Amino acid sequence: MNKEQTPLKIAIAGLGTVGGGLVTLLHQNQQIITARAGRPIKVVGVSARSRAKARSLDLSGMVWFDDPVTMAKTADADVIVELIGGSEGVARQVVEASLASGRSVVTANKALLATHGVALAKSAEAAGLALAAEAAVAGGIPIIKSLREGLAGNQIARLAGILNGTCNYILTQMRTTGGDFATILAEAQRLGYAESDPSFDIDGIDTAHKLALLAAIAFGVAPNLGSVYCEGIGRITPLDISFAEELGFHIKLLGIAEQSAAGIALRVHPTMVPMGNPIAHVEGVFNAVLATGDAVGMSFYQGRGAGASPTASAVVADLIDLARGRSVPLFSLPVAALQDRPAVAADRHLGSYYLRLMVRDQAGVIADISAILRDFSVSLESMIQRGRSTDAAVPLVMTTHETDEAAMMGALAKIAKIGAVLEKPQLIRIVKEL
Amino acid sequence: MNKEQTPLKIAIAGLGTVGGGLVTLLHQNQQIITARAGRPIKVVGVSARSRAKARSLDLSGMVWFDDPVTMAKTADADVIVELIGGSEGVARQVVEASLASGRSVVTANKALLATHGVALAKSAEAAGLALAAEAAVAGGIPIIKSLREGLAGNQIARLAGILNGTCNYILTQMRTTGGDFATILAEAQRLGYAESDPSFDIDGIDTAHKLALLAAIAFGVAPNLGSVYCEGIGRITPLDISFAEELGFHIKLLGIAEQSAAGIALRVHPTMVPMGNPIAHVEGVFNAVLATGDAVGMSFYQGRGAGASPTASAVVADLIDLARGRSVPLFSLPVAALQDRPAVAADRHLGSYYLRLMVRDQAGVIADISAILRDFSVSLESMIQRGRSTDAAVPLVMTTHETDEAAMMGALAKIAKIGAVLEKPQLIRIVKEL
Repeated sequence: MNKEQTPLKIAIAGLGTVGGGLVTLLHQNQQIITARAGRPIKVVGVSARSRAKARSLDLSGMVWFDDPVTMAKTADADVIVELIGGSEGVARQVVEASLASGRSVVTANKALLATHGVALAKSAEAAGLALAAEAAVAGGIPIIKSLREGLAGNQIARLAGILNGTCNYILTQMRTTGGDFATILAEAQRLGYAESDPSFDIDGIDTAHKLALLAAIAFGVAPNLGSVYCEGIGRITPLDISFAEELGFHIKLLGIAEQSAAGIALRVHPTMVPMGNPIAHVEGVFNAVLATGDAVGMSFYQGRGAGASPTASAVVADLIDLARGRSVPLFSLPVAALQDRPAVAADRHLGSYYLRLMVRDQAGVIADISAILRDFSVSLESMIQRGRSTDAAVPLVMTTHETDEAAMMGALAKIAKIGAVLEKPQLIRIVKEL
Repeated sequence: MNKEQTPLKIAIAGLGTVGGGLVTLLHQNQQIITARAGRPIKVVGVSARSRAKARSLDLSGMVWFDDPVTMAKTADADVIVELIGGSEGVARQVVEASLASGRSVVTANKALLATHGVALAKSAEAAGLALAAEAAVAGGIPIIKSLREGLAGNQIARLAGILNGTCNYILTQMRTTGGDFATILAEAQRLGYAESDPSFDIDGIDTAHKLALLAAIAFGVAPNLGSVYCEGIGRITPLDISFAEELGFHIKLLGIAEQSAAGIALRVHPTMVPMGNPIAHVEGVFNAVLATGDAVGMSFYQGRGAGASPTASAVVADLIDLARGRSVPLFSLPVAALQDRPAVAADRHLGSYYLRLMVRDQAGVIADISAILRDFSVSLESMIQRGRSTDAAVPLVMTTHETDEAAMMGALAKIAKIGAVLEKPQLIRIVKEL
């Protein structure tokens, strides 16, 4: 047999949505995948929690393993594909066992890599194995490949991404239907776009994992999950969305990574994005990344973030690379070459802010608020007071010129204590430029 | 010296905008490029038409060659970077000489590859050399890498791209200022966004080259430049742009490649793109590509298409791949594996159309036109007649439901002959879905 035609043998740990999608895609596009890989990609082993459940897939010719860790250690495979998920437990053991026993790893596991990526990359390097993870972020967009190979000649200054389809779906539906967060979330749960426990998505944690990973790749540093400032979308109201539109913005949950002389700042929060920016128009479950490099300037990527076949597509891309003998260090550089850059605290951020207060409509409120902002050197760009009422709270919306976050937070704490300010103030960060 | 640190030696043919940008970028980002390439990338030779002109660059340590073909044959280089341009002549000789003498090639030359790509790819393969061309299409977007590696697990059904910044700049300016084509073109020439002989850009030829190349990569076929239906932007008027907006479209010069059971259709023409599509919002000199794969669904890429540093960034990405020993066949498959798919003629296209007629405002005109459309089985979706005048022509705008292009063209030829139709009719293709 021609050496070129020796199959790349893989074993798949986890046959959920993505694992099933992978088996299906490898079968469905077998011909083109073999041609592009230069040789067949053959699934020789599988492991999942429930063997009964996996029977809807054609698993003929594959060895079944009840224990994925045993599979990682003993399967007759060149590559273990880890699709179990989670930063600890079985998924971690599978990846560690694979690398320890001479098998390369392809994984979709952002939590694992954001947490233990450096140690795992080091094991892979030491063993001369590959550790590939295109599917870990925005499956339908080859963003990891684009950053670490396509833009490899660039110093990346900034990344901004819509990295969680659930949050983007909820925000899009809130805007287009006027529904409130709780209602739209419940609907997303019914439709299967949100988990029954949605906190991992809506609190921004999933976005933080992906951001830490993308930043590591783009900047050539270790992922620093602990340094990510993280704020979810649970406090966004239809009122904020409608004021945002009036001011020329859409509200998106962004993960933003910025590199400056001071170090690296990683932030996840609802963000007002100017409508002129392409990321403002990314709707529904789509993901997107905007990368700014010193040579290319702005480059923008949009596609599906999750789902069986987009994620399987990303896994297959990694497998084709491995079949061709191409591999790139996980974080774009060998572990020893990763830079050590300080984390920049969120309160050192310079930016503009949207502030919505629910105030009693009485004389002097605006003067009191203005005085506090002046004392903290926060300068107003615009103010909107809509509606008058003697008994109910009315919204008072302000946007600021660029100010530092510490000053803004200081002012906010004082403003919250004014008697005529009736609810917890709403603060949303504005980006003028991405 | 550690083998890892043996530099990748390159020689650059052509020191114009891109060549100069490349020398500058390699110097400016030397540290990060070396880290990502795993070894230094060293320019050992250069050649350009005017040695005097090249003196604004720091060429120390590089051997000067008056003749780039001699350089390709004799320079102590692993890779020749061809940045001369043109499908024939010196550029072609440089690439052929490089491959014949054991040197890999990185090029930005879409015309050369769209015309002679298969023969060159065959030479490269036979010699075990790389022929890489990320810079040939949309320099600021790693679109070639994304298509042939990132989406390698997909059957690509369709590609649509804004591939020429000059045309997109002109159309954007026409829309935002209301200026006519000739005025905006003249302004673009003054600003250096359009050549003094602009036909290569505005007639769609440059787009056709790039489309033929992208389609070859996405579909795994030989580039088929001769089969591209090509129509430029010279007949687009402010009136069309304003009617387009009224109908919910922006007009873009798109290159569209579609693969179906019948074969491959390649078309370049002004296109009405629904405002809900991300490609409708790509403004100014930016390029963009929308790719539809069976696994990923829609994926979208936007970035700068030309200019010194975006193009240099693409060249450096190829060089880093070569330095790491990674290379992919030019058209995603070895030449022997390229598919032989028939070309689908443009008049077999099924689509919707915008038709603008300048008519004498008299009874019976609409009846006459409607009768012709009926005879050709072309069904109207909407009609706008704006303004009334007894002496001047007034615009009559119609959009059709999906119809085949042959029928539309047949109807158009007859409509043009109606006495009350005072100018050559304007026909613009509408895409409902991309």
